[in-house]
Amino acid sequence: MSDNPIGISLLGCGVVGSGVVRILEEQRELLERRTGLRFDLRHVVVRDTIKHAATHPNLPYTTDANAAIDDPKVGIVIETVGGTTAAAGYIERALRLGKPVVTANKSLLAARGAELFGLAREHGACIAFEASCGGGIPIIDALTRGLVANRVDAMIGILNGTCNVILTRMTRNGWTFAEALAEAQKLGFAEADPSLDVSGRDTAQKLALLAGLAFNVRVAESDIHVEGIENLQPVDIAFADDLGYVIKLLAIADRDGGGRLGLRVHPTLVHKDDVLAEVSGGFNAISLYGNALGHTLFYGRGAGQMPTASAVVADLVSVAMGTTPLMFKRLRIFPDVSPPATTIPMGETRARYYLRLTCRDEPGVMGQVSQVLGQHGISLSAILQRETDDGQFVPVVITTHQASEGPMRASIEAIDRLPTVVPPSMCLRIIDQPKEFATA
Amino acid sequence: MSDNPIGISLLGCGVVGSGVVRILEEQRELLERRTGLRFDLRHVVVRDTIKHAATHPNLPYTTDANAAIDDPKVGIVIETVGGTTAAAGYIERALRLGKPVVTANKSLLAARGAELFGLAREHGACIAFEASCGGGIPIIDALTRGLVANRVDAMIGILNGTCNVILTRMTRNGWTFAEALAEAQKLGFAEADPSLDVSGRDTAQKLALLAGLAFNVRVAESDIHVEGIENLQPVDIAFADDLGYVIKLLAIADRDGGGRLGLRVHPTLVHKDDVLAEVSGGFNAISLYGNALGHTLFYGRGAGQMPTASAVVADLVSVAMGTTPLMFKRLRIFPDVSPPATTIPMGETRARYYLRLTCRDEPGVMGQVSQVLGQHGISLSAILQRETDDGQFVPVVITTHQASEGPMRASIEAIDRLPTVVPPSMCLRIIDQPKEFATA
Repeated sequence: MSDNPIGISLLGCGVVGSGVVRILEEQRELLERRTGLRFDLRHVVVRDTIKHAATHPNLPYTTDANAAIDDPKVGIVIETVGGTTAAAGYIERALRLGKPVVTANKSLLAARGAELFGLAREHGACIAFEASCGGGIPIIDALTRGLVANRVDAMIGILNGTCNVILTRMTRNGWTFAEALAEAQKLGFAEADPSLDVSGRDTAQKLALLAGLAFNVRVAESDIHVEGIENLQPVDIAFADDLGYVIKLLAIADRDGGGRLGLRVHPTLVHKDDVLAEVSGGFNAISLYGNALGHTLFYGRGAGQMPTASAVVADLVSVAMGTTPLMFKRLRIFPDVSPPATTIPMGETRARYYLRLTCRDEPGVMGQVSQVLGQHGISLSAILQRETDDGQFVPVVITTHQASEGPMRASIEAIDRLPTVVPPSMCLRIIDQPKEFATA
Repeated sequence: MSDNPIGISLLGCGVVGSGVVRILEEQRELLERRTGLRFDLRHVVVRDTIKHAATHPNLPYTTDANAAIDDPKVGIVIETVGGTTAAAGYIERALRLGKPVVTANKSLLAARGAELFGLAREHGACIAFEASCGGGIPIIDALTRGLVANRVDAMIGILNGTCNVILTRMTRNGWTFAEALAEAQKLGFAEADPSLDVSGRDTAQKLALLAGLAFNVRVAESDIHVEGIENLQPVDIAFADDLGYVIKLLAIADRDGGGRLGLRVHPTLVHKDDVLAEVSGGFNAISLYGNALGHTLFYGRGAGQMPTASAVVADLVSVAMGTTPLMFKRLRIFPDVSPPATTIPMGETRARYYLRLTCRDEPGVMGQVSQVLGQHGISLSAILQRETDDGQFVPVVITTHQASEGPMRASIEAIDRLPTVVPPSMCLRIIDQPKEFATA
């Protein structure tokens, strides 16, 4: 029933790598029973073999990555080193030898995917990268298989667990960003340097990969408008709640009639009726809108050792079975064979907006504000003003009907110059589920 | 770039079949660009060619299914006839010729899956059946690929769109079952004879297929305890709401420590914080709990022409690319190679319970009821009594801590014999998300 064992080199044995080792050890019998495959972990490449041997002694540690990759008995290379320097060299080396690579390295693929996929194709190898986006959620599967017969119209995702943990704490506990970040760091949900996550860049890198597959174009991180969550105030979360929304860091990709793509990452008001509003804590979710399938959503742990390792081992199995190599050869949706995305300039994208102004408590303020918005062709949807102890300044929240980003920004600049308004005003976008996909 | 076109016979051209035709026509260019594949729809088998030609004239209609299957230029057969008689003969004929079959026929696969998968294996063919469960949700993909490295501990799904539409209407509008059913029939969400759906049997057939793949066993429909939604009262939905729950028809499969499976379909109280509670109208969702992946959920339209057709065409592509045949050959998780499930008798399953009693408004009733429950080792969690205009009878709702089904049923029988209680009492189960998978 079983074939000869398949030789594996594992590059890196940190959080994800040691999770992979654990699954290969603990689920050896299950994997063999389900797939007929046996894996022979021949090399585990680490920087300090002594340190690793102290915690997990019985592994074939080595510091010689090149020898581990070159070993003729190694058929598949797993890269969990991370980063864009050493990892790139290892992956290139494996691909040039025609060896398939399994990786969770979204930064590298977002930066140099086209080149690496091209190299894989040139040498008859392939790259499996389910673990690079959405942790254990099989979203790349969905894009490469389940939705293959659909024109994708929009993709909306919560792709960063750290940000979602922080926003969940801010929402549930009324905490400031700084308080929620400190807690997330304490619980291991945020790095000591959280900037890649909270700036939205990590989300953008994942969006670049996923949007490329969904829309069959090549997306660069620089194609994406990115705003992080660092400037969110508890007052905005409270106002959003009053209006029936929660604030989430969303990655959004949608197309206009002419085939251009809108690509953006920013904190967004999501209606509480939207399933995405229920995605809390370390969970991720991706909504896809296909022309035949309608709305579909994939939910799960977006990071963490075992969910990510689960995706790596699923990829390992698919590579070993031969399905990933077949799909990589067949499907013309990978960055190396896709045209570059034509993007919608951010100023042309449309949304509803949430504006929070700090106004002097004087008559006529709202008249001036509405006038500015009206001059830019923007109409109001709702106004919310809360009582405050402060007699001098009053927070006023305005939501608008659909408007374009360009006029909206011009309006805010004009509003912030009004003598009755204390700048800067806060501006957030509101997302509505595409009507044609709404719940029956 | 493209290969020779792949000859297709489409058996049946009803709702799903004509959706498949539409995708093959409208997405011809997209499918070829993405996959390099072209499909040649050589035969569309219908009972009345004249009737069909009137609505969609340019298709190669025929009434001769056998000739359509046998055509040596036909490489893949799509079965959308439905039912367990004619469809079975067609599928067998195709498989005996070694031709892969794509089908949405859950009833047939639930009844005779082991035999048909075995026939496919014997003749080097395969069966692709993503469209049979959860409409367009790629759940079979998830079970055969994304979760392959996980021991699945539990699966909880909303698998029937008709029931979910009815329950959503009952919840939102306070309607009776009969009113909600009539509306669902008017909107095309329920058949004239809705019994297969509302009885829970359709859900059980899907659960049989999905649990088989998840737990690598062969599940018969008769292994599953099934209760439908016909007896739900608006008062129960209102009480559940007060307690923080919504009522959903759930398909549940979980394992005990000894590898036995609990398999059941019944209306269930789902906490409003659970993502499943947000699944409304015609949507379906499946929660999977994997030992590495944790909680993951797949959401989308569970039925309907285009979502189901989308899944059929996705299968068609995978069969044509060769990935489905490879997986079918490799993976040892299909019913023909799996051992029969060892099930947990329903009396031994455990849950929290919701009980609604109709009590005479007399002192001492609650004492008697608690005594009965206590005698069966069941402890109360909450009691809810609403004021009524009726001075004589009072509805009382009790929720319990974890209890076993056997003692619970015995308790209800004893309670219904109390002189102060008007039988029959209503008993529903409450589901709690497994603690170890709860939101971070």
